[in-house]
Amino acid sequence: MRNDQRSENSLRPITITTNFIKHPEGSVLIQVGETKVICNATIEDRVPPFMRGQGKGWVTAEYAMLPRATQDRNIRESSKGKVSGRTMEIQRLIGRALRSVVDLEQIGERTVWIDCDVIQADGGTRTASITGAFVAMVLAFGKLLDNNTLKKMPVTDFLAATSVGILPDGTEILDLNYEEDSHANVDMNVVMTGAGEFVEIQGTGEEATFSMNQLHTLLGLANDGLATIFSIQEEVLGDLAGRIGETLKGQDGK
Amino acid sequence: MRNDQRSENSLRPITITTNFIKHPEGSVLIQVGETKVICNATIEDRVPPFMRGQGKGWVTAEYAMLPRATQDRNIRESSKGKVSGRTMEIQRLIGRALRSVVDLEQIGERTVWIDCDVIQADGGTRTASITGAFVAMVLAFGKLLDNNTLKKMPVTDFLAATSVGILPDGTEILDLNYEEDSHANVDMNVVMTGAGEFVEIQGTGEEATFSMNQLHTLLGLANDGLATIFSIQEEVLGDLAGRIGETLKGQDGK
Amino acid sequence: MRNDQRSENSLRPITITTNFIKHPEGSVLIQVGETKVICNATIEDRVPPFMRGQGKGWVTAEYAMLPRATQDRNIRESSKGKVSGRTMEIQRLIGRALRSVVDLEQIGERTVWIDCDVIQADGGTRTASITGAFVAMVLAFGKLLDNNTLKKMPVTDFLAATSVGILPDGTEILDLNYEEDSHANVDMNVVMTGAGEFVEIQGTGEEATFSMNQLHTLLGLANDGLATIFSIQEEVLGDLAGRIGETLKGQDGK
Amino acid sequence: MRNDQRSENSLRPITITTNFIKHPEGSVLIQVGETKVICNATIEDRVPPFMRGQGKGWVTAEYAMLPRATQDRNIRESSKGKVSGRTMEIQRLIGRALRSVVDLEQIGERTVWIDCDVIQADGGTRTASITGAFVAMVLAFGKLLDNNTLKKMPVTDFLAATSVGILPDGTEILDLNYEEDSHANVDMNVVMTGAGEFVEIQGTGEEATFSMNQLHTLLGLANDGLATIFSIQEEVLGDLAGRIGETLKGQDGK
Amino acid sequence: MRNDQRSENSLRPITITTNFIKHPEGSVLIQVGETKVICNATIEDRVPPFMRGQGKGWVTAEYAMLPRATQDRNIRESSKGKVSGRTMEIQRLIGRALRSVVDLEQIGERTVWIDCDVIQADGGTRTASITGAFVAMVLAFGKLLDNNTLKKMPVTDFLAATSVGILPDGTEILDLNYEEDSHANVDMNVVMTGAGEFVEIQGTGEEATFSMNQLHTLLGLANDGLATIFSIQEEVLGDLAGRIGETLKGQDGK
Amino acid sequence: MRNDQRSENSLRPITITTNFIKHPEGSVLIQVGETKVICNATIEDRVPPFMRGQGKGWVTAEYAMLPRATQDRNIRESSKGKVSGRTMEIQRLIGRALRSVVDLEQIGERTVWIDCDVIQADGGTRTASITGAFVAMVLAFGKLLDNNTLKKMPVTDFLAATSVGILPDGTEILDLNYEEDSHANVDMNVVMTGAGEFVEIQGTGEEATFSMNQLHTLLGLANDGLATIFSIQEEVLGDLAGRIGETLKGQDGK
Repeated sequence: MRNDQRSENSLRPITITTNFIKHPEGSVLIQVGETKVICNATIEDRVPPFMRGQGKGWVTAEYAMLPRATQDRNIRESSKGKVSGRTMEIQRLIGRALRSVVDLEQIGERTVWIDCDVIQADGGTRTASITGAFVAMVLAFGKLLDNNTLKKMPVTDFLAATSVGILPDGTEILDLNYEEDSHANVDMNVVMTGAGEFVEIQGTGEEATFSMNQLHTLLGLANDGLATIFSIQEEVLGDLAGRIGETLKGQDGK
Repeated sequence: MRNDQRSENSLRPITITTNFIKHPEGSVLIQVGETKVICNATIEDRVPPFMRGQGKGWVTAEYAMLPRATQDRNIRESSKGKVSGRTMEIQRLIGRALRSVVDLEQIGERTVWIDCDVIQADGGTRTASITGAFVAMVLAFGKLLDNNTLKKMPVTDFLAATSVGILPDGTEILDLNYEEDSHANVDMNVVMTGAGEFVEIQGTGEEATFSMNQLHTLLGLANDGLATIFSIQEEVLGDLAGRIGETLKGQDGK
Repeated sequence: MRNDQRSENSLRPITITTNFIKHPEGSVLIQVGETKVICNATIEDRVPPFMRGQGKGWVTAEYAMLPRATQDRNIRESSKGKVSGRTMEIQRLIGRALRSVVDLEQIGERTVWIDCDVIQADGGTRTASITGAFVAMVLAFGKLLDNNTLKKMPVTDFLAATSVGILPDGTEILDLNYEEDSHANVDMNVVMTGAGEFVEIQGTGEEATFSMNQLHTLLGLANDGLATIFSIQEEVLGDLAGRIGETLKGQDGK
Repeated sequence: MRNDQRSENSLRPITITTNFIKHPEGSVLIQVGETKVICNATIEDRVPPFMRGQGKGWVTAEYAMLPRATQDRNIRESSKGKVSGRTMEIQRLIGRALRSVVDLEQIGERTVWIDCDVIQADGGTRTASITGAFVAMVLAFGKLLDNNTLKKMPVTDFLAATSVGILPDGTEILDLNYEEDSHANVDMNVVMTGAGEFVEIQGTGEEATFSMNQLHTLLGLANDGLATIFSIQEEVLGDLAGRIGETLKGQDGK
Repeated sequence: MRNDQRSENSLRPITITTNFIKHPEGSVLIQVGETKVICNATIEDRVPPFMRGQGKGWVTAEYAMLPRATQDRNIRESSKGKVSGRTMEIQRLIGRALRSVVDLEQIGERTVWIDCDVIQADGGTRTASITGAFVAMVLAFGKLLDNNTLKKMPVTDFLAATSVGILPDGTEILDLNYEEDSHANVDMNVVMTGAGEFVEIQGTGEEATFSMNQLHTLLGLANDGLATIFSIQEEVLGDLAGRIGETLKGQDGK
Repeated sequence: MRNDQRSENSLRPITITTNFIKHPEGSVLIQVGETKVICNATIEDRVPPFMRGQGKGWVTAEYAMLPRATQDRNIRESSKGKVSGRTMEIQRLIGRALRSVVDLEQIGERTVWIDCDVIQADGGTRTASITGAFVAMVLAFGKLLDNNTLKKMPVTDFLAATSVGILPDGTEILDLNYEEDSHANVDMNVVMTGAGEFVEIQGTGEEATFSMNQLHTLLGLANDGLATIFSIQEEVLGDLAGRIGETLKGQDGK
């Protein structure tokens, strides 16, 4: 039994509220247990300098926590005048993950800015951010479909993330909360597509290691948990869910 | 008639949700029309270096906007590596205003950190921040009363803020939304106590000026609007509202 | 009696030395009692990016203190690598105040840079800066009139600032020196035009409040003090003083 | 056949020169093909603030590239005034990996600083850094054994890293050089211990994905390559190699 | 004949106004031709961390220019958030030069902060800063003698600086103004003591070189010019001038 | 006898390894005794903004030390977020020195970036950097000659640097190592051309002074030492050495 009465292979309850904030092209509040993240997607009609003139778009992400999203107050990164290594690592991960399911040629010279702002943290903020950001991004592309800026949904597959880990007693568990995460020997974030392919695996033993067998068990837990998450995303996206992958079908056999 | 059908002396609807985030000692979400601000209060058991050894506490504030709180996306201040002049001005104002109704000796060598994070902006974010931060701060002191860290509520009076302004046609109005604020000739923020005293008046003509008579009309509008806001704060605070000012009563005749 | 033998409604002696530094288009040294500020105005033949293509000019200000302008040495903001909130607040105030009396269309796509450098501080540095900067700016426009770059003086009225405040014993006073300012309960900066209109009122109770009646008394003191200051500016500006407001007269009845 | 005539499961030639620089407690130059990294280990007799008073040590790493380590010159991070996200990600990885094989209690309140400076880059700089840093760290601990500061080698096992990846044609390969890395669909860094346990797996599909089967093949390639690397480390370390793990043996049955 | 009608070996007129600003322990305004620098000396009763516990003092300097000290306006270093290489070079030079004539043991664990702020620049700002800073520092030590904090003047000799250079036509000249400096092939700053010893020689050919013979001529010009400057310092310092060197005399034969 | 058994006028052994790193246009490792510096020269096909449109090139330098190049570990300047005054002074010196022997018109609108990275420091890092950077720069121009981008070697003469100094006992010595440098009363860096002209003299007494006679002795030591260094550069450069100065010969009589 886990500290919140879940079984080893149970996810925490997930709620995704769409259109949470009014200004962004796509906006969701995702709650995974007690973790709450606002994910906003902005469409900008240009690309960063290193991408110009290639006729392709770009997807990039920023991540932050409110100072009191955590048990103790953190100093704002704007006050410190620099972004921490942890923040950079997370925002690079979110951007890279989302790009793996976007047909960048389809969107033309536009940038999708993803802002993930954690308002309450209880473990798994980076994986909740990816799962929520995916929905916000699809909603934003929905706006471009509505006003005929795009003809087809440029998203090729569903995308979500979850964490798995190994507790000090050797138990492999799915979807760690903060308490579990801070004691786990091994922590692994897994990002997958709806088709069951890996986009990113980041497994880390902090002052610990793990074997090939343990890796298998962990990936199995992640795979099963993500199947549930994909169905939540699908339900929340409604009609837009059906348009995911349509650029692939149009290309017969790619 | 105003662009949102209000009369000149009408406030926008105000909602204050208490205990919005679980970690902070005090937390509220304040909505003033379409403006939404999370106000969190943190109690830290020490004071900044310049205050040490005086046996007094301190109240300080930080303010930020999510990048997409506004119509167009703003670059994060953490990415720019510095805090803008506007942000600094606002956070200094919030801290100063709150300190005017706190008995700093009563709280001992503690710091109250106020974090105001705007998640959706539609004008009046600094005044909504003050109004919401006051409630979050009282809630946080309530925790200290509950666990007997403090004996008396160290807040001496209610505190709230609103804006008033003059439209290009000369109309004086209460509680400007973003559209009104961006066209107004004169913009004035007024912070008052429950007893009807001024804590701060900041009136500014951007490429315009105003007369003594106009100043009177504006202050009258602010005074009436703030009376309504104090009653909302009172209702939301429940029993804690009754304890505001108790340190004054105990001092017989101050 | 005040600590420097002035009556409650007395200004400190004011001296404005024109053409203090040789390179700037306009340069003055303003002394208000023991407060000394060098105010330089620079005309640059372009506007900041957000103003381009509108055919209008811009006025902006920077403010700084020499490290030893004060009793104790302050660390240079260049050494700290960032500008303090106080500095930002002041330079935004100076720029905004000056813009209220400049016809920005008249000056075309030019920027007026105002640099206020306090070499000795004894209270009232921001109001002395505004009063001195106004003169420096008019001198700079005088150069543009002399060489026929401009046809009319683009300044619509006189502009000056002073401070008023309330001492702990309740006395309302005009033009606070440093000693008074550091003990005052209420501190208010008032910026007015020659026509007696308000441009900016910033009244602050630091851990204190003030009533409507006190506000009236303070504004009366400020109004009388500023009348004296306008006459000093007028004398110092000589012939240029007579040209202030000439763009208004040319517009018949605006 | 690969662009440098290697077979799919071949490592590039690896050379580790010990005592490369005279000042550090441990210093190596590691060359992996054309990639050259100076790895220096410094022992400092204190720990960072968050570790004080726990009687434990810490291992931390910094990573940098000379501006011209690459084909095009990079701007120095010291000139830009900030460290990039990529750099932060790498130095966090190196530190975390090394800590997994160090008995932090054994070293007492000391910090091991690892500096990895890439002087020539041709792919795999982060994995070469880990492999070289391990040797530098063991050499540094050797100094502490020599002067009796430590009684036992506090390193519990060998540690090394390599990369594997999938080329656009689907070929899985070991130890990617720069040319391969810049075209690969999938790039995976694997850090293992001498006992064959995983310390870190970071697999990334940049605009691509990978299956469970592909993951297996990649991990197999990494496992075989690392066996060779461990034997090179062992040879280079000479007598010190024999002392790795001695704290474990002493604990009978941990 | 030079562009300002001086002969090759003529200094510009030098004026040193003492007690220019009221707060600092020592304050002068030095004018060398059209160059004007405020030099303030502050005595702080502690030393920087690297000097603590040695029973010795320290002398350090900061240098800055007002934005409009020059023909074109310079961006403030506080706005840029960093100090330029030129500024750093100059302030290191000033500090080093002054330390060469101060008996650091005599002053105990105190820091002398020298602030040189150029309010108008016309060439030779760093040498004028040294010459003026010397006077400000002696005045500050004078205060410590007056209140018996020090028993003897800790300054061992006079110190001043000037520039010499070679014009494109080969003429060697003394005390270059801005116009001359910007065209000179060789520019040399010379800092000497009253006893005629060198403290610092910095001779630079910018895209040019100079011979041993030219070096001799330049050093002769500097030597003669400095003799005049020492007599100006002596006059300005009055009685304090006579106390320079008294710690040497007291040490019989050092 | 000196601490490393050299006579007063002896240089330490100098080795210059060419083509040390593969990517740069010119690359050398210079060793002067125990001091080791990697000097890389990069040719960029554009000039900085302030040089554009003049048809001339530019030479600029950056200098850094590995954290553990020294006895104690230095904090990286990239971690501190700013470059120290010492670093700035050195890189400005290197750039200025090299420009004195380059015909900037000949190289067209190109920038030569010189990167001097000290991997092991034992005194004289700035002079070793200049001597090594000269060779790296000539090698880089050699590439431009090889591919016919340039017709003539744009370097007008040899250039090298060394240090001289005065020990506390009054001995004048050549080429100070770290131990000597940290105790010397006077430290002087001398940069000369092959023709025996001075490019830069920086002589500094840290808390000490020096006489004209001592200056002569020091310059004589430097002159003799540099003769040896020029012959080492000449040998290392092979055929390219013969092309130095060829633009001068082509200009008959300049």
